Amino acid sequence: MVDSERFKGVNFCLNCGNSLEIKHDKEGKERPQCTKCGWIYYKNAVPAVAVVVLNEKNEILLVKRKFPPQQDFWALPSGYMEIWQTPEETAVCELQEETGLIGDVDRFIGYYMGFSPIYEKVLSLGFKMNITGGCLQAGDDAEDARFFGERDLPVIAFWSHIDFMQKCGIKIQKETPDEIQ
Amino acid sequence: MVDSERFKGVNFCLNCGNSLEIKHDKEGKERPQCTKCGWIYYKNAVPAVAVVVLNEKNEILLVKRKFPPQQDFWALPSGYMEIWQTPEETAVCELQEETGLIGDVDRFIGYYMGFSPIYEKVLSLGFKMNITGGCLQAGDDAEDARFFGERDLPVIAFWSHIDFMQKCGIKIQKETPDEIQ
Repeated sequence: MVDSERFKGVNFCLNCGNSLEIKHDKEGKERPQCTKCGWIYYKNAVPAVAVVVLNEKNEILLVKRKFPPQQDFWALPSGYMEIWQTPEETAVCELQEETGLIGDVDRFIGYYMGFSPIYEKVLSLGFKMNITGGCLQAGDDAEDARFFGERDLPVIAFWSHIDFMQKCGIKIQKETPDEIQ
Repeated sequence: MVDSERFKGVNFCLNCGNSLEIKHDKEGKERPQCTKCGWIYYKNAVPAVAVVVLNEKNEILLVKRKFPPQQDFWALPSGYMEIWQTPEETAVCELQEETGLIGDVDRFIGYYMGFSPIYEKVLSLGFKMNITGGCLQAGDDAEDARFFGERDLPVIAFWSHIDFMQKCGIKIQKETPDEIQ
């Protein structure tokens, strides 16, 4: 059985179902490996996308999260990048799924390597988007979706989203509480 | 047993070792799921880093790959991003491991979502780097490491690396053969 916190839940070989053991690879790095077929578990940051949308009053679009992590916090529309999607396609899909709005990618904002209580690390790509259609309403993954003025911002769920907002000129005036991930 | 090409080798639950079956999640997306403990396999692009280093003659640093994918092709110094490293730390490590050179990150070049015969998709981040020390010699993962003038470039292994080189002003004059991934 694998017992490190990093490899919690990583117990059996994905390929053959045999037990995994943490061994050192040729570079001395610890990896859970199958003692039968040799399959190796590599843990990687999970790619995600978050989008910054501003309206004509320079208010920013946020969604109230319906599911963990950071359930009930407000955040940018965002989601994990499916393997069949490009980053830009993910941006378009997440915006529509969470807010009902249809949009185009305006520009890449930046990347942010953040903590995740589920995956340990998430590699987020931020995109600025323009709205081209749709109607604002909270989607399946969101409890609420609306625009906030800079002075009325709630606590934002993730450091990555704060970073992307700041890079788009939004001032985060609140203190930064411990709950942010 | 899971039989899709996308989920080749994804047969048993990482958590409990039971068989996996492809089921549709609440959004209708196909995911291998454990029929016993409910664990779900999410396949994600693997994050990687590649670095562009130019010398004073504007020649570019390439390494000859010792291992798959694209063994024996020339490529930028590059590697998968370990979960305990930031993208910039990965850039510094890969440069040193593959070429013996020590360097600092100058700037982020861009990202590229590329095909991988091993992981299906790789999300590469490109960095321009400056050399600060070390001695040029091929490391453990490389058969050779040297600088190439723009007119003497070999076939480059990956489209992502070609993209990062072009974004740094390097002209790729060769035709682009089918072997590039």
